[in-house]
Amino acid sequence: MNKRYKKGWETLGKINSQAGQRILDLLKDISPDMARFVIEYPYGDIYSRPGLDLKTRELLTIASLTTLGYAKDQLKAHIKNAFNAGCTKEEMTEVMMQMSIYAGFPAALNALFILKEVLQEKKDAKKK
Amino acid sequence: MNKRYKKGWETLGKINSQAGQRILDLLKDISPDMARFVIEYPYGDIYSRPGLDLKTRELLTIASLTTLGYAKDQLKAHIKNAFNAGCTKEEMTEVMMQMSIYAGFPAALNALFILKEVLQEKKDAKKK
Amino acid sequence: MNKRYKKGWETLGKINSQAGQRILDLLKDISPDMARFVIEYPYGDIYSRPGLDLKTRELLTIASLTTLGYAKDQLKAHIKNAFNAGCTKEEMTEVMMQMSIYAGFPAALNALFILKEVLQEKKDAKKK
Amino acid sequence: MNKRYKKGWETLGKINSQAGQRILDLLKDISPDMARFVIEYPYGDIYSRPGLDLKTRELLTIASLTTLGYAKDQLKAHIKNAFNAGCTKEEMTEVMMQMSIYAGFPAALNALFILKEVLQEKKDAKKK
Amino acid sequence: MNKRYKKGWETLGKINSQAGQRILDLLKDISPDMARFVIEYPYGDIYSRPGLDLKTRELLTIASLTTLGYAKDQLKAHIKNAFNAGCTKEEMTEVMMQMSIYAGFPAALNALFILKEVLQEKKDAKKK
Amino acid sequence: MNKRYKKGWETLGKINSQAGQRILDLLKDISPDMARFVIEYPYGDIYSRPGLDLKTRELLTIASLTTLGYAKDQLKAHIKNAFNAGCTKEEMTEVMMQMSIYAGFPAALNALFILKEVLQEKKDAKKK
Repeated sequence: MNKRYKKGWETLGKINSQAGQRILDLLKDISPDMARFVIEYPYGDIYSRPGLDLKTRELLTIASLTTLGYAKDQLKAHIKNAFNAGCTKEEMTEVMMQMSIYAGFPAALNALFILKEVLQEKKDAKKK
Repeated sequence: MNKRYKKGWETLGKINSQAGQRILDLLKDISPDMARFVIEYPYGDIYSRPGLDLKTRELLTIASLTTLGYAKDQLKAHIKNAFNAGCTKEEMTEVMMQMSIYAGFPAALNALFILKEVLQEKKDAKKK
Repeated sequence: MNKRYKKGWETLGKINSQAGQRILDLLKDISPDMARFVIEYPYGDIYSRPGLDLKTRELLTIASLTTLGYAKDQLKAHIKNAFNAGCTKEEMTEVMMQMSIYAGFPAALNALFILKEVLQEKKDAKKK
Repeated sequence: MNKRYKKGWETLGKINSQAGQRILDLLKDISPDMARFVIEYPYGDIYSRPGLDLKTRELLTIASLTTLGYAKDQLKAHIKNAFNAGCTKEEMTEVMMQMSIYAGFPAALNALFILKEVLQEKKDAKKK
Repeated sequence: MNKRYKKGWETLGKINSQAGQRILDLLKDISPDMARFVIEYPYGDIYSRPGLDLKTRELLTIASLTTLGYAKDQLKAHIKNAFNAGCTKEEMTEVMMQMSIYAGFPAALNALFILKEVLQEKKDAKKK
Repeated sequence: MNKRYKKGWETLGKINSQAGQRILDLLKDISPDMARFVIEYPYGDIYSRPGLDLKTRELLTIASLTTLGYAKDQLKAHIKNAFNAGCTKEEMTEVMMQMSIYAGFPAALNALFILKEVLQEKKDAKKK
């Protein structure tokens, strides 16, 4: 276990170690190296940097994934990360609304619908 | 001059009224209605909302424009806005680096090169 | 209820007031302001303009959503709008085929498959 | 000279045979087959179909190229084609404005600036 | 049955005639001309060219579809084609991993998950 | 100088050490960490892997950059890399032509025009 991998897990541990573990599990028989790269580069090299706090980084990621339009699973995972990093539902809503300007209304609306899904899942989980 | 247009100009005035005026000038003979919409919707309706401060909004916009890849003029304008809203060069660099994860290295590098251009222009302007 | 919102509903009423209501219902607890913006800007400000008829506007929207590739729900909704605005199945097929030139064959084929889905739903609805 | 190639040139001749010739000249030493395909598939197979008139087809292409964002040279060429096919400046402006809803404001504004460029070139050409 | 259509089927026959037939079946009542174009242009005109072997062509297509992000059904079909053309699971994994550089990690990961799906389907089919 | 960085330079040295140095020079005062990441992740982690040869990797990158549409500088650099890795003009032309199927004709044509530019620069360099 190299330094970057360790740092990546430390950073992931602050926002969503389950999501990290899930990607590892999914990739283990098909591409364990890619699983390692996902921990090392995004989380070990980038998210762990001091220049921006994790809360801001998650909002930026939501902005980017909303703009891409097609990355629905990743957006869902990062909405959960964003909650763990201390972002509120209101802040995420603002980010997605703002994206209507740059990426168009379909991108913004699809992101809001995914946020709605996550909120519903949270509600359902509480009931149990 | 309706309320939203007025609110749009107030918000633009805090970050870059020159950029707003430039778009108006460019569009005035081809589509004055679009010029008005640019002030009303992005700045009057969205950026003026209380849920996120202007500094965070500009970083989010930089994330989105970096992700789009093709919107170089808008990215340049928003880098200037971001400086006016209190963002530092270091924060913008972090945003662009983070985008390499979601939009790829070409998108991130092209954004960094535009930031470099803006910094050079600022330096040149100071010399005069 | 402001002027633009009212105008937006009038325009939506001509093509698909159900779709508008559905978006409002979906967004009401997560972002009622965004729901309002969807009525005001696209339908109040743009679709209601006299420069192009609603039929042409819906074909243009189908061209854009086909090109984006990821906006499948919006494409489905606008195919229904397009039928309501007087577009034929043949015209929509032509638009989607033409998009293979600019956005590639996958984008064009996916759009055609969604059109097929809408046509099937229409057939099924008639049977009942 | 096969049938499709001939039909392609006939169609191109109605809107912009110069643009067709320019692409052929550009590609002749690098990929003459691709030059032939450009005439055969888009113009021979698609634009020549009876289901939509050339004017509508050019507006749809402008919608698609505006949405893509990066295809500036092609957008410029098709704005000229659109004028030749009988589209007005006002109609093209409407198409581009409408694209702000689906592809975002940067895509729409960049398209409007290219239209402005074409209009300026037309003005300059008249002066001579 | 024209020459290009015939050549298209010959090429498709080497990698996946079932996929070709499936597209024809799907499109037959909605757009039989588009079904014909899919055989003629991609397979008759392009894949049948001698400059690159079918194996390399399929890897290139996987690179492109991974980059597009939204074309999941087409990616799935071409992964199957790639196996038929002699590509290995390892080679496809490498292509998708490499795409993380240019199109970002979400695009690369989504492609790997689709490859995983195809491998699972192959395993399930063997059991029967 | 860590292992990955060293491996990255070794790999870059085989295809284009000038391009690597140019990116480092461009980024050194704005983001030296990003410059390091460009060497470490794409070249140290990915291109250096044994699963695909450098020639195939460069063709795949050309496919991806052609598909993205906006990454013109990167495409130019990788066309040069591809020549250094042993790809021929004919192979690159085939890749770009094939991309017309998945990313559309504008993306394919713009890539071919950049290839033409590189070929012209090579010719001009020989004359001197």
